[in-house]
Amino acid sequence: MLTLSLIGIGCGDPAQLTRAAIAAINAADLVLIPRKGSAKSDLADLRRMICADVLESDRTRIAEFDLPVRDAGEADYHKGVDDWHDAVAATWSQTIANHLGRDGKVALLIWGDPSLYDSSLRIARRLDPLPKIEVIPGITSIQALCAAHALPLNDIGAPFLVTTGRRLREGGWPQGVDTVVVMLDGGTAFRSLDPAGLHIWWGAYLGMPDQVILSGALTEVGRRIVALRQEARERHGWIMDSYILKRRP
Amino acid sequence: MLTLSLIGIGCGDPAQLTRAAIAAINAADLVLIPRKGSAKSDLADLRRMICADVLESDRTRIAEFDLPVRDAGEADYHKGVDDWHDAVAATWSQTIANHLGRDGKVALLIWGDPSLYDSSLRIARRLDPLPKIEVIPGITSIQALCAAHALPLNDIGAPFLVTTGRRLREGGWPQGVDTVVVMLDGGTAFRSLDPAGLHIWWGAYLGMPDQVILSGALTEVGRRIVALRQEARERHGWIMDSYILKRRP
Repeated sequence: MLTLSLIGIGCGDPAQLTRAAIAAINAADLVLIPRKGSAKSDLADLRRMICADVLESDRTRIAEFDLPVRDAGEADYHKGVDDWHDAVAATWSQTIANHLGRDGKVALLIWGDPSLYDSSLRIARRLDPLPKIEVIPGITSIQALCAAHALPLNDIGAPFLVTTGRRLREGGWPQGVDTVVVMLDGGTAFRSLDPAGLHIWWGAYLGMPDQVILSGALTEVGRRIVALRQEARERHGWIMDSYILKRRP
Repeated sequence: MLTLSLIGIGCGDPAQLTRAAIAAINAADLVLIPRKGSAKSDLADLRRMICADVLESDRTRIAEFDLPVRDAGEADYHKGVDDWHDAVAATWSQTIANHLGRDGKVALLIWGDPSLYDSSLRIARRLDPLPKIEVIPGITSIQALCAAHALPLNDIGAPFLVTTGRRLREGGWPQGVDTVVVMLDGGTAFRSLDPAGLHIWWGAYLGMPDQVILSGALTEVGRRIVALRQEARERHGWIMDSYILKRRP
């Protein structure tokens, strides 16, 4: 029987690891480390570093594998994602079969939390044979962003929406909320909004040594965020950022 | 100079503590433990237990204090909360002055994450003298709920709303989303919705030994959740639960 532990490792700072995550990594027979290409090699490096840091015995094997690339040319976005999940599941199954066989505990170290804008749970359900799935929560970039700004996410008794850059760009300010968290924004979707009355709390490389944050009235800091983001992206070769917008009456 | 660390401790399972939380508790000169009355004594007990578990030296003092009670008779909800925050801030200031004076590191252990439906950040800004504020994120009940159900919180590329029981009861199903997380529901606000097409993932005492979860079509499990919740609340004297609703086409 196979068990697959999807272990949230937080968003870059090894101090965000929970005791449960450390225990689950140590309980694994095999840790899978996906390689996503050189631009995101920092992410594979972080996983290697965490394993080196927390593993207490050399009983646990580590297997690296190249993650299939999603076909960005597929016109149907959902079909593209679906095909990609199948391909990733096949790669996981093959790597597990090669290194472990059909019995044991496999661990995957998941950036942030396995439940939040992550595909691992959906991919895990496509594995053959189907493993028992265990989820260990991890600190998300939303939490690291709020902590860095010492910002209460919600207003008192009020709701908030978590959405993507694409949705914000396409749909504008969502109805019924004054607080919006924007994830997975490949660009700067906040520029599509009328900035009047909006405040932003922005952060990139949250929890990492290169963390950078900025906040203020969107009319005042919007341009500086665009410039900072561009400059940081060029320097690192990649960027992961997120932000919170609040509408003030 | 005073530093106040608001330390997220997760929602009941000491294994949810992060390394950063453990380090911050150990770095404190004084840990404040609020007592909220006998019905919620489990929560103070958990904080005492965590301190006993993680503190490596007896240099760190622990001070318990009785939390003021919010005036539920105040007709203006926001004024009631505002007055209560002032009263809590005065109690924190007094307890810090009594046990530490005007210099040192004070820690407060916050259920879940200090940024999510928690007043500590707002109260901290009312302290006299004003401390330097540091936030350590912690695993939230939303994350524990998703982990217990092995549930991806968001659909692919889709937004979700986090709201309160009161808002759900008053406003019905929110516009523009198919996933809703309900927090702070003193009752069972999901009963105010037409259950057709809705799925629920519910959990109480998440991360604790008494954790109970239930999921399914709301038409099928809604009544069982109401009964389970009632029975658990009577047995424990209190309940903390949350749930996720998804609308399926």
